[in-house]
Amino acid sequence: MHEIYTASSSAPVNIAVLKYWGKRDTNLNLPTNSSISVTLSQKDLRTLTTVNSSRNFEKDSLYLNGVSHSIENDRTTNCLEQLRSLRQQLEEDDPNLPKLSQWKLHIISENNFPTAAGLASSAAGFAAMVAAISKLYELPQDASELSRIARKGSGSACRSMFGGYVAWEMGEKLDGTDSKAVQIAPPEHWPNMKAAICIVSDLKKDVSSTSGMQTTVQTSELFQYRVNQVVPPRYSQMVDAIKNRDFETFGTLTMKDSNSFHATCLDSYPPIFYLTDTSKKIIKLIHTLNDAIGKVVAAYTFDAGPNAVIYYESENEEVVLGVLFGVLSNVDGWNEMNSATLKVPEGVPLSSLDSTIASGVSRVILTQVGEGPKESDMFLVAP
Amino acid sequence: MHEIYTASSSAPVNIAVLKYWGKRDTNLNLPTNSSISVTLSQKDLRTLTTVNSSRNFEKDSLYLNGVSHSIENDRTTNCLEQLRSLRQQLEEDDPNLPKLSQWKLHIISENNFPTAAGLASSAAGFAAMVAAISKLYELPQDASELSRIARKGSGSACRSMFGGYVAWEMGEKLDGTDSKAVQIAPPEHWPNMKAAICIVSDLKKDVSSTSGMQTTVQTSELFQYRVNQVVPPRYSQMVDAIKNRDFETFGTLTMKDSNSFHATCLDSYPPIFYLTDTSKKIIKLIHTLNDAIGKVVAAYTFDAGPNAVIYYESENEEVVLGVLFGVLSNVDGWNEMNSATLKVPEGVPLSSLDSTIASGVSRVILTQVGEGPKESDMFLVAP
Repeated sequence: MHEIYTASSSAPVNIAVLKYWGKRDTNLNLPTNSSISVTLSQKDLRTLTTVNSSRNFEKDSLYLNGVSHSIENDRTTNCLEQLRSLRQQLEEDDPNLPKLSQWKLHIISENNFPTAAGLASSAAGFAAMVAAISKLYELPQDASELSRIARKGSGSACRSMFGGYVAWEMGEKLDGTDSKAVQIAPPEHWPNMKAAICIVSDLKKDVSSTSGMQTTVQTSELFQYRVNQVVPPRYSQMVDAIKNRDFETFGTLTMKDSNSFHATCLDSYPPIFYLTDTSKKIIKLIHTLNDAIGKVVAAYTFDAGPNAVIYYESENEEVVLGVLFGVLSNVDGWNEMNSATLKVPEGVPLSSLDSTIASGVSRVILTQVGEGPKESDMFLVAP
Repeated sequence: MHEIYTASSSAPVNIAVLKYWGKRDTNLNLPTNSSISVTLSQKDLRTLTTVNSSRNFEKDSLYLNGVSHSIENDRTTNCLEQLRSLRQQLEEDDPNLPKLSQWKLHIISENNFPTAAGLASSAAGFAAMVAAISKLYELPQDASELSRIARKGSGSACRSMFGGYVAWEMGEKLDGTDSKAVQIAPPEHWPNMKAAICIVSDLKKDVSSTSGMQTTVQTSELFQYRVNQVVPPRYSQMVDAIKNRDFETFGTLTMKDSNSFHATCLDSYPPIFYLTDTSKKIIKLIHTLNDAIGKVVAAYTFDAGPNAVIYYESENEEVVLGVLFGVLSNVDGWNEMNSATLKVPEGVPLSSLDSTIASGVSRVILTQVGEGPKESDMFLVAP
C-alpha cells in the first residue's frame, strides 16, 4: 500500500508599520524590538504550500515556484524539527496515529505574485509551510504558538500567522518562548485599510536583510537609541491608533518609523541603502498629497528594498490613487475602473507630479488588509 | 577730495569631517554640537572680496559674482554691525582715524569656482567679507575673535577663518561669545592631505541647509542622540587623529559622521534627502577600494548636497585617483598628468567599477589642505 498524507495551506504577506530590524539572538531569530504589521489580502499576495508525507519518501524535499531547493538550511531545519517533535508528542499519546513524525516530507510552494517583484516572500513562505504541516500533523497548537515556530524560519513570518493587525512581541526570555505574534485586531475591526504597492526597479539590490540587520546592530550608534528609546513608546501609540482606527496617528507613525529604520541602515558601517531616488520621489509625493489635503490620508513604508507600500483608507481612495495614477498611469496594475475615474485631486500642484517616477516603477499592486493562513483545497504537485 | 579706502582678502572653502547640523539659537547661529573641518586650498576654491569705504557712498552695496545682491538681510547686517562697532571703538580711542565706521561700504565678491557646482560658497564668502573689512578697519582682533563675527553670517564660515585643521567649538554661553573657531593644526602639520571633489548633478536640490537643519532639530529623535551621545566622543577622537596624523581613524570617523548626519536628515519629518543614487555609488566605490587595499586610504564626506568630497593622503594618490579615474575618466577636471598615469589599482574588482557613476558626475576638482584668509593685492571693481 502506498499511503500518502497531504495538506494544503495558504498564508499572506505582511508589511510592517513598526519595523523589525536587528536580532538579539541570530540562532533563535529573537528581535531587538517588538514590531507591528498589517496582513495583506491573499487574493493579491499569498504563498500556497502543499505538504505530503509518506513512509516511502526517501528524503525531505522542497519546491519553490517550480524549482527544487535544498532543505539543508538551519532556518527550514529548525522549523521542521520543532513541528515533528510536536507531532511526536501526539503520536506518543495516541499509538493509533500514523507515525508521520518519522516520515519524510515533500513540500511544494508557490507564490501568486512575481518573485522578481522583490516583495519579501519568505514571511508568507514560512507561514504557509508551518500552517500546512501543522494541519497535516493535526497539531492542537494555536496560531500564536505556531508563530514561534514560523519565527525560526524567518522572523517576520511569525506575523503572517494572523490576519488583520498583528504585533510581534519581542519577549524577554533567552529561549525565545515568549517571542511570538499576537493579533491586535482582526481585519474586520478596520476593514477599510487599503494598500497600494509600487514595485520599484532596482538593478543591484543592496545587502540582504539577514546580513544587513546584523551590520546595523553591530555598527550603528543611532540604532541602539532607536531600539531602546524610540520604538517602545511608538509601539504603544501604534497599538492605540489601530484600536481607535486613528489613521492620522497610524499613518504618521508608519512614515516616521520607516524613515527611522532606513536612517539606522544609513548609519551602519559600511552604510546600507535600500531607498533609491525613485523611492524618495514617492515619499515626497505622499507628503505633497497629505499637505494638499491638510491631513494624513496616505502613509508610505519601505522594507529592506526600494518598493513603496502606501497605506490609506478606502474613503480616501480617490485622492490617493488619483495622485499615484497622475504619475504612474503608464505602468501595469491599474484596473479598468481605476483608469476610467482617477484624476489628480485638487490642491495638489501639478509641478509636484514628477513624471520621472514612472521610469523607476514597474507596476502597482492594489490590495488591502486581509485574513491569516487558510486551509486550501488546492493541492500543488511537484513538477 | 574723493577719498576711498579699500582692502581685499581671499578666504577658503572648508569641508567638515565632523558635521555641523542644527542650531540651538537661530539668531546667533549657535550650533547644537562642535564640528571639525579641513580648510581647502585657495588655489582651487576661494572667494575674493574687495571692500571700499567712502564718505560719499550713499548706501551699502554688495556684488556677488557680478550680480547685485540686497544687503538687507539679518546675516549680513549682523556681521556689518559688529565690525562697525569694533571700528568705532578704535575711532573713539584715536580721534585722528578716519570715521570709516560711519561710512557706507561697497562690497564686491567673486568665487574662482562655478557657483553652479553647488559647493557651499557662503562659508568662504562670509569669511572673505569679514577678513577684508577687518583689514580695511585695521581691527586688532585675532582670527578666533573674528570667527565669531563670521559665524553670524553663516555658521560654517567661522571655520574658514583658519587654514589647516579647524574646530568650531560650540560654546555654552547664551550670548555666543564662546562659540568660535580655533585651529587644531596648521596645514603644514599634515600637509599631504588631499581632497578629490566629485560634483554630482542634481536636478532638484532638497531643502536648504538653513531650514533643513531646523526641521531635523525639531523632528528627529535620533538627532538628539547624535548631538548628545555620538558627537562628543567623536570630537575628541577626531582631534587626536589629526594631531597624530592617523588617517585610518580620521577617515573612518569622517565617513561615519557623514553617514550619521545624513541619517538624521532621513529621520526628519518630512524626511530630507541630500544623497542621490550617484552619491551612494561613490560611497560604495570608496568602501570597495578600502577593502581591496586592506586599510582606509580614502574617506568620503557629503555636506547638505550630493557632491562627494574624498579625503586621502598624497602617498595613496595613485590608488585613490586610479579608482576614481576608472569610472570618471570622461568627466572634466583631470589634468594631463592624471590622465596619462592613472589606472585602477590591483585588487579592486573591475565589476565594482559602476560605469553609470559618470553620468551623474559633472566634474572633479582635485585639491588639498590649504591656508586661511589672506590679504590680496587683487582688487575687484563693481561691474
